[in-house]
Amino acid sequence: MHLADEAWPELEAYFEEESLAIVPLGSTEQHGPHLPEGTDHLIAEAFADEAAARTGYLRTPTVTVGVSPHHRQFPGTAWVDAPVFRDYVESYVRNLAYHGIDRVVFVNAHGGNVQHLREVGRRLRDDDVAYAVEWMWDESIPDLVDEVFAHNGPHAGPKETALIQHLHPDLVHEDRLEEARDGGAIDPEASIRTRNGSRTFYDCVENSSNGAFGDQTDASAEKGAELFDAASDQLEKLCEWLAARDWDELRAPERVTA
Amino acid sequence: MHLADEAWPELEAYFEEESLAIVPLGSTEQHGPHLPEGTDHLIAEAFADEAAARTGYLRTPTVTVGVSPHHRQFPGTAWVDAPVFRDYVESYVRNLAYHGIDRVVFVNAHGGNVQHLREVGRRLRDDDVAYAVEWMWDESIPDLVDEVFAHNGPHAGPKETALIQHLHPDLVHEDRLEEARDGGAIDPEASIRTRNGSRTFYDCVENSSNGAFGDQTDASAEKGAELFDAASDQLEKLCEWLAARDWDELRAPERVTA
Amino acid sequence: MHLADEAWPELEAYFEEESLAIVPLGSTEQHGPHLPEGTDHLIAEAFADEAAARTGYLRTPTVTVGVSPHHRQFPGTAWVDAPVFRDYVESYVRNLAYHGIDRVVFVNAHGGNVQHLREVGRRLRDDDVAYAVEWMWDESIPDLVDEVFAHNGPHAGPKETALIQHLHPDLVHEDRLEEARDGGAIDPEASIRTRNGSRTFYDCVENSSNGAFGDQTDASAEKGAELFDAASDQLEKLCEWLAARDWDELRAPERVTA
Amino acid sequence: MHLADEAWPELEAYFEEESLAIVPLGSTEQHGPHLPEGTDHLIAEAFADEAAARTGYLRTPTVTVGVSPHHRQFPGTAWVDAPVFRDYVESYVRNLAYHGIDRVVFVNAHGGNVQHLREVGRRLRDDDVAYAVEWMWDESIPDLVDEVFAHNGPHAGPKETALIQHLHPDLVHEDRLEEARDGGAIDPEASIRTRNGSRTFYDCVENSSNGAFGDQTDASAEKGAELFDAASDQLEKLCEWLAARDWDELRAPERVTA
Amino acid sequence: MHLADEAWPELEAYFEEESLAIVPLGSTEQHGPHLPEGTDHLIAEAFADEAAARTGYLRTPTVTVGVSPHHRQFPGTAWVDAPVFRDYVESYVRNLAYHGIDRVVFVNAHGGNVQHLREVGRRLRDDDVAYAVEWMWDESIPDLVDEVFAHNGPHAGPKETALIQHLHPDLVHEDRLEEARDGGAIDPEASIRTRNGSRTFYDCVENSSNGAFGDQTDASAEKGAELFDAASDQLEKLCEWLAARDWDELRAPERVTA
Amino acid sequence: MHLADEAWPELEAYFEEESLAIVPLGSTEQHGPHLPEGTDHLIAEAFADEAAARTGYLRTPTVTVGVSPHHRQFPGTAWVDAPVFRDYVESYVRNLAYHGIDRVVFVNAHGGNVQHLREVGRRLRDDDVAYAVEWMWDESIPDLVDEVFAHNGPHAGPKETALIQHLHPDLVHEDRLEEARDGGAIDPEASIRTRNGSRTFYDCVENSSNGAFGDQTDASAEKGAELFDAASDQLEKLCEWLAARDWDELRAPERVTA
Repeated sequence: MHLADEAWPELEAYFEEESLAIVPLGSTEQHGPHLPEGTDHLIAEAFADEAAARTGYLRTPTVTVGVSPHHRQFPGTAWVDAPVFRDYVESYVRNLAYHGIDRVVFVNAHGGNVQHLREVGRRLRDDDVAYAVEWMWDESIPDLVDEVFAHNGPHAGPKETALIQHLHPDLVHEDRLEEARDGGAIDPEASIRTRNGSRTFYDCVENSSNGAFGDQTDASAEKGAELFDAASDQLEKLCEWLAARDWDELRAPERVTA
Repeated sequence: MHLADEAWPELEAYFEEESLAIVPLGSTEQHGPHLPEGTDHLIAEAFADEAAARTGYLRTPTVTVGVSPHHRQFPGTAWVDAPVFRDYVESYVRNLAYHGIDRVVFVNAHGGNVQHLREVGRRLRDDDVAYAVEWMWDESIPDLVDEVFAHNGPHAGPKETALIQHLHPDLVHEDRLEEARDGGAIDPEASIRTRNGSRTFYDCVENSSNGAFGDQTDASAEKGAELFDAASDQLEKLCEWLAARDWDELRAPERVTA
Repeated sequence: MHLADEAWPELEAYFEEESLAIVPLGSTEQHGPHLPEGTDHLIAEAFADEAAARTGYLRTPTVTVGVSPHHRQFPGTAWVDAPVFRDYVESYVRNLAYHGIDRVVFVNAHGGNVQHLREVGRRLRDDDVAYAVEWMWDESIPDLVDEVFAHNGPHAGPKETALIQHLHPDLVHEDRLEEARDGGAIDPEASIRTRNGSRTFYDCVENSSNGAFGDQTDASAEKGAELFDAASDQLEKLCEWLAARDWDELRAPERVTA
Repeated sequence: MHLADEAWPELEAYFEEESLAIVPLGSTEQHGPHLPEGTDHLIAEAFADEAAARTGYLRTPTVTVGVSPHHRQFPGTAWVDAPVFRDYVESYVRNLAYHGIDRVVFVNAHGGNVQHLREVGRRLRDDDVAYAVEWMWDESIPDLVDEVFAHNGPHAGPKETALIQHLHPDLVHEDRLEEARDGGAIDPEASIRTRNGSRTFYDCVENSSNGAFGDQTDASAEKGAELFDAASDQLEKLCEWLAARDWDELRAPERVTA
Repeated sequence: MHLADEAWPELEAYFEEESLAIVPLGSTEQHGPHLPEGTDHLIAEAFADEAAARTGYLRTPTVTVGVSPHHRQFPGTAWVDAPVFRDYVESYVRNLAYHGIDRVVFVNAHGGNVQHLREVGRRLRDDDVAYAVEWMWDESIPDLVDEVFAHNGPHAGPKETALIQHLHPDLVHEDRLEEARDGGAIDPEASIRTRNGSRTFYDCVENSSNGAFGDQTDASAEKGAELFDAASDQLEKLCEWLAARDWDELRAPERVTA
Repeated sequence: MHLADEAWPELEAYFEEESLAIVPLGSTEQHGPHLPEGTDHLIAEAFADEAAARTGYLRTPTVTVGVSPHHRQFPGTAWVDAPVFRDYVESYVRNLAYHGIDRVVFVNAHGGNVQHLREVGRRLRDDDVAYAVEWMWDESIPDLVDEVFAHNGPHAGPKETALIQHLHPDLVHEDRLEEARDGGAIDPEASIRTRNGSRTFYDCVENSSNGAFGDQTDASAEKGAELFDAASDQLEKLCEWLAARDWDELRAPERVTA
């Protein structure tokens, strides 16, 4: 069920039975010349909907804007500063906890959010408020992703392209896939600026002129569907595992004594 | 156009021509036993879409969670604390300004956000970053609203009911309209706790047992459509007016000299 | 009794018996060409003194500077930024609570403080520290105010003029009452800039060239005395009502269950 | 002139000519069994009024509550936490600077505020906003104070007693002067808890059972008048000196080059 | 040269010629039963000293305490909360910039600091204050590290053991190397708790009972010396590269135009 | 014992027996032409090591950078802004408290840190987290210091010179002692800018052209040794006294009742 679609009596019934919430988070940022800027939050939302449908757990509204200053040179990238993002997510979850939520799955589709969600998750656990896990779809099926695509790309690559082709085909500029590949960084390892073990870039544009990585022409809606189903299986299992835990299993460990 | 649906080359073209953004904001909070908790953000989003479609101006993703602690006693109400909300909106708009946006229409459908949007708007203007106006649909057509409904209600009343009947009929519990009215506060003026000129309540539940105000049975999708069109006319005009201003007209006034 | 005038043994005796404090708050901001900038805090202080004298409850020192950035174009307006004001009042009351204060009447005479006092009051109640009500004199006697003056004005109008004529006649420039009226906005509804339901101003000077509203020539010390007495009756009742409550009546309501 | 008493046209005239403001600050905290809790802010206010009268410079409303957590064990002590106090004073002065104020005399009568005013003053100078000096009356006439009283006492001692006897005789409990002396710490050096070079107390009550220091029976209104006049001479000179400086003299020094 | 060891005339001479600073950062946290808690900051300090000696660039005092809440269950782990760490490093570097520093090498030996240093580095570059690169010794020589050790371990493993054996042999409990291996997590990939693509731990103790990873018995001072020299070569090159850049090369890129 | 040098099993044993930590703090700031900028933290560290060696109590890593903006005009002075310093120390100690530390000796050798350590110490005691005392070596032996040197100087004077001559003779520019004296402010009372009881300076350079005070030629390593031993005796006693207290003796006093 989707929190935004329900009236409060239905939600009361949910909180009497369950204490898990699925919170989708993404970004609104450039995804190459061929994908919509909402790519990450559209993907997160689709997985959250699917998991809610499969499991019956509650999903909340999507956090559509994340930590994306590294994409700002490309027109339209929206973002909030990192401290603001953390405070926003923390306040959001603390207030969900008022209703009895004590475990959260962050269905996150933007790599730039990960460390911030982990930092917030730590505070929430350390304060004994809630236990939150951060989940990214592609990290749940790394072997399959590698198997399906030759040139993956961490951002705006074939895996994200395939997912949007599957989920929102009207939002893909199919006629720009070659342009995305040729004007971008087909081989991320070769493109990403590092030197003597240090990253010497802060912004995406320093590594890819058009903001895309990998070979987008390798993507298809069929591959997208396959990936979506496979990752949804993982998310479903994660939700069920988390819901089945006793709260004491999830709390911060005690101090070590030798 | 919707920022989330576009790729960056289209957005680049937009920013070359225009400097206005429409930002929809609402809440996710109880709206009586009959309406979905997303009522406010669904309404804001619909108006933003309509205005973008009519005018061609850009609309951004919706801020779906607002300042709603006063509804928290009702299950499911989501909120972020007021300082967090202000910082979030401020950071959001400041970063839009990186792309050249210097005027913003906050299409807001939650009364609890108003003062915070005004506070943020002031900071943005005082810092010479952007000029933002806060707009609520019902305040743009007060006479029509009064004319259409006998018992209005500031929250979860017939006007919001009618809008959701029009926009998302599947999300309305039509069988609970009488319950909403009878278990709530049909006459807000009589229900709201004040004493000697002072408000002696902080939470909605102190004024309405089921979270609703006014007479919901008076609502209909037809009335919703009428209100939606009338308010959209107002919003369209506001956008056009704002876009046509010179920046110097919008800046903070100079100090007075007698 | 006035906290500032007493030595600690007298205050110890008070806290043994009572847990209510009256906190006057105002502003120091332009009030047209005819009134002193301290108008709001002088009014608040007078009401607090009167209520303390009538009821025996403790009043604290006055918060003389408030949230007045919207008057800054007029020379002399002093203000603190809104977040600072909120933190200041919150810290002030939290520390009064150390002595046993658990209920507070904010005797406030500046409209620009209202939302901030409500926000602080909410935090204090949600944290179970204290229950604070915000009170403005003119809102406690709206019918009388309307009856006495034809052209009211929300700021620097006849009602404030009359009060200062009554309380501090030496601080009124009687020879500028016509100038105040003629150079200001006699009819606020006509002057305040709104458009399509949206406020398109942030600063007072955008609505009134000299910072005043209404017809000041209609004011007199006699009317001021009448208003002061009538509103003091209201404040007295509010204090007595609040003091008589059990703490459990004042705490935040529990979560709703259907 | 007192900012709160003037209307904006008079203040406009002032700012056209002058850029100095006198800001009185004190505390509201226990001052032994014999003095009112407002002692510090009443003293600061009196000096500010006197300086304004003598020099014609503007004085602002008094900051009546300061950093006094160390007196909180005594009933009635009001305070704001140190970070809040600093932010409040900083925001206050930054906003005065909007009107052209670039030099400020903090007429401060509470020792607990000193370090915070210095910290704020540094930020204001480092940011090239304003140059603020912190002034305490007794530090301007140390020899005279030592000459007049045998047992001085840093707090609620004869010097503060004498000043209140002079300024507000009705607020002194003359019949408790012996009690103040005998129940307090007549010899501060002997009473203040230090050990091996370290202060081992945080709160006043750890050093004085009734909150007072020194020999209060040595105070008189005549001595208070003498001290007030002598210190007022110093303050007057300080204001004139500060007003006469070029702004470049007051700015932070440049980096050193050998 | 080490900033702490020099007097200001020598430093003045440095700033006249150079604008680069080497800032060592580590942590003070458990490193298994066999290594000192200062391991990370001792390593960082040694590399910073070596780089300063080789290149002549300035190194600053070491930041010895970092973001280590994930090790807190083991006695003695010291840490500051993540927001505090970020603010501290940011303030530190902003103030170095007062002297002309515009490029910084963070010689960091604690993985838990990385994301925070990157976040701070971004702010500094976005604000045009300084360009900072974050460098970890083992990431500069990944192939060599893999070649030298069979079971590496991300924390308190053979690579850190070898370095401390080389740098501070007296601080290694040589008699506990087997205990470290056998009571810890020799194979990190097998030990680290993940599930369905999600990390389901927050604290080190959840993955290793004694806080160590890898096979510590494989370490030796000789291997430590080899690694230290090889990584020092990398750091030296990085410093020279950074110092040779024009400032314009280091600034944030401009907005993209198609 | 030094926390950074120990492995966690040794620290576990310590926390089982003791709850006291010695935290050295200093600064990195100009100390005249003759002393290293690390003077203050080197001194603090030496005292902390000595006290730890004598008493067996734990000392933590040194906080090497403090609140030194007033020395920034001299090249190389490092500092963090005052609010950052306070938050850093507070977070540091709060996290030590996780391990059972409830009493702390701040071995501080920088006057500019004092008020901030006291402010932090107050918060920690008021929150019932820990009791911290701030200790400066020269304040523990004021008579001896006065006896040994004719012209003391609060900063970079003979007492600090002597200590560094004793502790780190290689870091003293012995050939610049006369220059330090003659180019600085040999008689601080005469040099420090005050006027009418007000300090009219913010930065050290306003009082001393080369950053030094007093007569440095009067210093010697022998005098340094004598002072170090005498002050170490004081510190040792302070540690023993503090460790011997019951926790209830250290907590904040209760409210006063007459």
